[in-house]
Amino acid sequence: MPHSKSNNLRLIEFFPITGWLKSYTRQELNSDLFAGTITAILLVPQGIAYAIMAGLPPQLGLYASILPPVTYALFGTSRTLSVGPVSIAAIMIASALSAPEISALGNPVQSALMLSAESGIIMLLMALLRMGGLVNFISHPVLTGFTSGASLLIIGSQLPQLLGLKAPSCGVELACYSEYLAGIVPATLLIGLIAIGLLIFFGKPLVFILKNAGMQPYLITAISKCGPLLTIMLATLAVAYFDLKAQQHIAVVGNVPSGFPKLNFDFSPIEKWYALLPYSGFIALIAYIESVAIAKVTANFRGEKIVPNQELIALSISNLTAAVSGGMPVAGGFSRTMVNFAAGARTQMAMLIAAAMLALAVIFFSPWFANIPKAALAAIILVAIIPLVKLSDIIHTWRYDRGDGIAEAATLLGVLVYGIEEGIMLGIILTLISHLRKTSQPHIAVVGRIPGTAHYRNIKRHQVETWPHLLLLRIDESITFANINYIEEFINAELSRQPDLKHIVLIFASISDIDTTALEILENLNHSLQAAKITLHISEAKGPVLDKLEKTDFIKQLQPGKAFFHTEDAVRELSKDGALSL
Amino acid sequence: MPHSKSNNLRLIEFFPITGWLKSYTRQELNSDLFAGTITAILLVPQGIAYAIMAGLPPQLGLYASILPPVTYALFGTSRTLSVGPVSIAAIMIASALSAPEISALGNPVQSALMLSAESGIIMLLMALLRMGGLVNFISHPVLTGFTSGASLLIIGSQLPQLLGLKAPSCGVELACYSEYLAGIVPATLLIGLIAIGLLIFFGKPLVFILKNAGMQPYLITAISKCGPLLTIMLATLAVAYFDLKAQQHIAVVGNVPSGFPKLNFDFSPIEKWYALLPYSGFIALIAYIESVAIAKVTANFRGEKIVPNQELIALSISNLTAAVSGGMPVAGGFSRTMVNFAAGARTQMAMLIAAAMLALAVIFFSPWFANIPKAALAAIILVAIIPLVKLSDIIHTWRYDRGDGIAEAATLLGVLVYGIEEGIMLGIILTLISHLRKTSQPHIAVVGRIPGTAHYRNIKRHQVETWPHLLLLRIDESITFANINYIEEFINAELSRQPDLKHIVLIFASISDIDTTALEILENLNHSLQAAKITLHISEAKGPVLDKLEKTDFIKQLQPGKAFFHTEDAVRELSKDGALSL
Repeated sequence: MPHSKSNNLRLIEFFPITGWLKSYTRQELNSDLFAGTITAILLVPQGIAYAIMAGLPPQLGLYASILPPVTYALFGTSRTLSVGPVSIAAIMIASALSAPEISALGNPVQSALMLSAESGIIMLLMALLRMGGLVNFISHPVLTGFTSGASLLIIGSQLPQLLGLKAPSCGVELACYSEYLAGIVPATLLIGLIAIGLLIFFGKPLVFILKNAGMQPYLITAISKCGPLLTIMLATLAVAYFDLKAQQHIAVVGNVPSGFPKLNFDFSPIEKWYALLPYSGFIALIAYIESVAIAKVTANFRGEKIVPNQELIALSISNLTAAVSGGMPVAGGFSRTMVNFAAGARTQMAMLIAAAMLALAVIFFSPWFANIPKAALAAIILVAIIPLVKLSDIIHTWRYDRGDGIAEAATLLGVLVYGIEEGIMLGIILTLISHLRKTSQPHIAVVGRIPGTAHYRNIKRHQVETWPHLLLLRIDESITFANINYIEEFINAELSRQPDLKHIVLIFASISDIDTTALEILENLNHSLQAAKITLHISEAKGPVLDKLEKTDFIKQLQPGKAFFHTEDAVRELSKDGALSL
Repeated sequence: MPHSKSNNLRLIEFFPITGWLKSYTRQELNSDLFAGTITAILLVPQGIAYAIMAGLPPQLGLYASILPPVTYALFGTSRTLSVGPVSIAAIMIASALSAPEISALGNPVQSALMLSAESGIIMLLMALLRMGGLVNFISHPVLTGFTSGASLLIIGSQLPQLLGLKAPSCGVELACYSEYLAGIVPATLLIGLIAIGLLIFFGKPLVFILKNAGMQPYLITAISKCGPLLTIMLATLAVAYFDLKAQQHIAVVGNVPSGFPKLNFDFSPIEKWYALLPYSGFIALIAYIESVAIAKVTANFRGEKIVPNQELIALSISNLTAAVSGGMPVAGGFSRTMVNFAAGARTQMAMLIAAAMLALAVIFFSPWFANIPKAALAAIILVAIIPLVKLSDIIHTWRYDRGDGIAEAATLLGVLVYGIEEGIMLGIILTLISHLRKTSQPHIAVVGRIPGTAHYRNIKRHQVETWPHLLLLRIDESITFANINYIEEFINAELSRQPDLKHIVLIFASISDIDTTALEILENLNHSLQAAKITLHISEAKGPVLDKLEKTDFIKQLQPGKAFFHTEDAVRELSKDGALSL
């Protein structure tokens, strides 16, 4: 941060809300009011559905939709990101809560709040260590494979809900499955199918009809986004009116406590913190990556700017707020943010309005939530999640880049077979290996002088002067443990090709670093060359590289070899005693 | 392998022994006989000591010193590597055998043989997958930190032996330690201290005295390398003569069965294979890395060549031989190989001779091994291992390269605190992160034309022509997930600096790959630029890169942007409508 920066700018940096609030217009308020209402309508069913998916009471999803978006509005740099419960985090929470070492500790609600707190703390640490950039090291194929895999897990967890069944425990016994499927509750399935039909109809078909009817675009958006709420309301009314819960054994959400939660500051059992650590680490990572990715998409549309490190801070505070106010871990939701954006949200005021509406809903409508059938919630999740399964993308990626394709497929399979955390870890490791393989073969050019100039070029591509006792090598990448062996082998191959060699000059013009391993192997190489009466020189080393080398006695070890400033100096001195060959 | 290669060369490739055996001279035999004898004298105490360190009966170390070096002699490419039991592998075996999930399965001898078999199989798989090069991805600082940490663990395991104590189980209670130390067996400690004194004396002091006395160098080597055997013999004689075992409670090696082991082909319990997998994986990795490193050192002295993939095959077969012939896992030992080399070994015949001597020793001297005091063995291990602890190297590395220093320190601490496998894993991950951080900021140059030429150079370093509506960017590294974000930010920063920009040309001359993530972000960047009425072009893309891009519709998406062959073509076409500025 430059010292000349005014206090005002610093305030905006830390509280981005101060940037837009003072010039906030009436017009913007109108847009935000509309978008906030639409998003709130979406948040109610999503909050309840994702909490249930995570294996938690519904209020943890609702509470996560109230205060966390408010703190994000204060600290976040995205104007349209909708922070709250999200499906991928929900399935990760479910995976944590069902892990033996965590379920053994009991009290899943406490575990969920501790996950919020711990992932918030991890994000804060990442922000303090300026590790916002680290997430760039998770490649897109790994993310896509992860999203597809997690979505398939979500689908697998929701299908039984749609059928009125519990999760199957049959393994590979086919007979068991036919018995299992005999337990389908027909009324539940009917509600689920009608709900899916309604939701699909509220998508493209209704938009198409309303467009042809000449309706205003903003009204079309408003009506089509009411699909989930309308579905839930109709299903709930049906349950209440026909008493389906008692008569047809339809599973419903159950009691949701009225009013606000008491603030919670009890996160006492230390062993739980420890057991939850790997899970909250991955939740923090994924929540951050997905939020920034979504925030960037909408920011790009309007030429706004996302500051990754500030996003870490904002998401961290939002998750800590969730922990304190009784909410499950939060992140920026993809579909919700796109709805908020499409509905015309201009600033985070839209999310403040949505949060206020959620608070009112929790206070006044909680009794109604009890009769929401779980099948209708499952339908909402399924319709939202199915487009995220992109299996054909793997073939696409494989055709373009083998290594990336393998990483994507392995991540997806890893998530399905081993679990969410293991799958993404596998993908990251495979990407790193494939990356190292690629960088382990740097471009090395044997160069010669373009006659009459001081320019040196690849002998394969240009007519250049060379000398039989002098080898000029230009290494086009930083020298590290990953590529030094390749470089060593390249030099050895050149040695056997040029038996009269007396001098080798390594041109360091493109090298910006030499790591410890590379330095040691260069030292060994120099010793072997000296034993064979060949002198090693370097030329055109950049300042920082030379500074680093001067901390060691490498330059001294080279003697009589030298560190030349220009390659031309090296050639003028070393080519003297050799015959010229073109 | 080229088709023209003769069968003879193929034979040498797979059986390197055929390369030197047919031209083997009398003189070489003399040298090898001498070196083999010296190495055998070292192998007897080392074999017994390392087996006991691993928590195994002594014969597993002796058997590992007989047939495995013979198979290595047939298949290995190093002429002086001494394959057999080694200290680092021994402590890794101890760590595996004491792990709860493995000790629960009982029968440590069987577990050790299965470790030999499994690490042999893993090496074979690595050889078939041509993964010999993968070990280049473990950096030297990580290896040094690992060696220091493992050596400290070995020292910690040997000190109680020297004192006649069992491993302490006191935790942090100081009172407990004073009670523990009261159990020291004075006679054991005395033997241990005398042994250490003798071993130190047989090192530099004796060499110095004999040199001054004018003795022949080869005799000095022979005498000084007898230190360990002489120490063991004296200690054993003392135990037998004074009946120290019964009278002073001195711990001894105990019964060693006479003669050869029966060959073993029973590796049945499948769950043990599974439980041992992570341990044998790391043993295979470390055994391979250390062996190749040592083999390279001695090969460099004589201008011989080590073929990494063939080494994998040779070490794999040696470990499988160990498993079948009742031996613990084997690798190339550093100190032993250096002794073999210094004693003048010319070929693997030296190790064949040493193996024959070991076989004779096992057949005829086994009864004597029973009375060897463990304290003398601990002394041998301690004197050999202490020089491997290189704590100051961490400061050295840290001064040269921060990331490498952190990785080295973390590996050492990780080995001590979490365990051997965890420590090396931590080091590898930290090295990769630091490597990615470095490669994530590629060199990017804004270039302009050197007047009157078609050469384009960095505007910061040369007087060049530029155009206000045309930006020429040369990216000097392959574009991947690790650096695309930096490149994107660089371009955005240039955009805000040049408000009149209409065309951007990315010069791909130094780019040899664009991965999936990078391609997606370039596509998004192109869309944002098009929205801002700026056209993106590329130039000088290499054949393979262009081929890869043509599998996608990226070039089509660029339209009206183009893929130019030469940057000059791009400038000729795009600079037309702009004013020239110098």
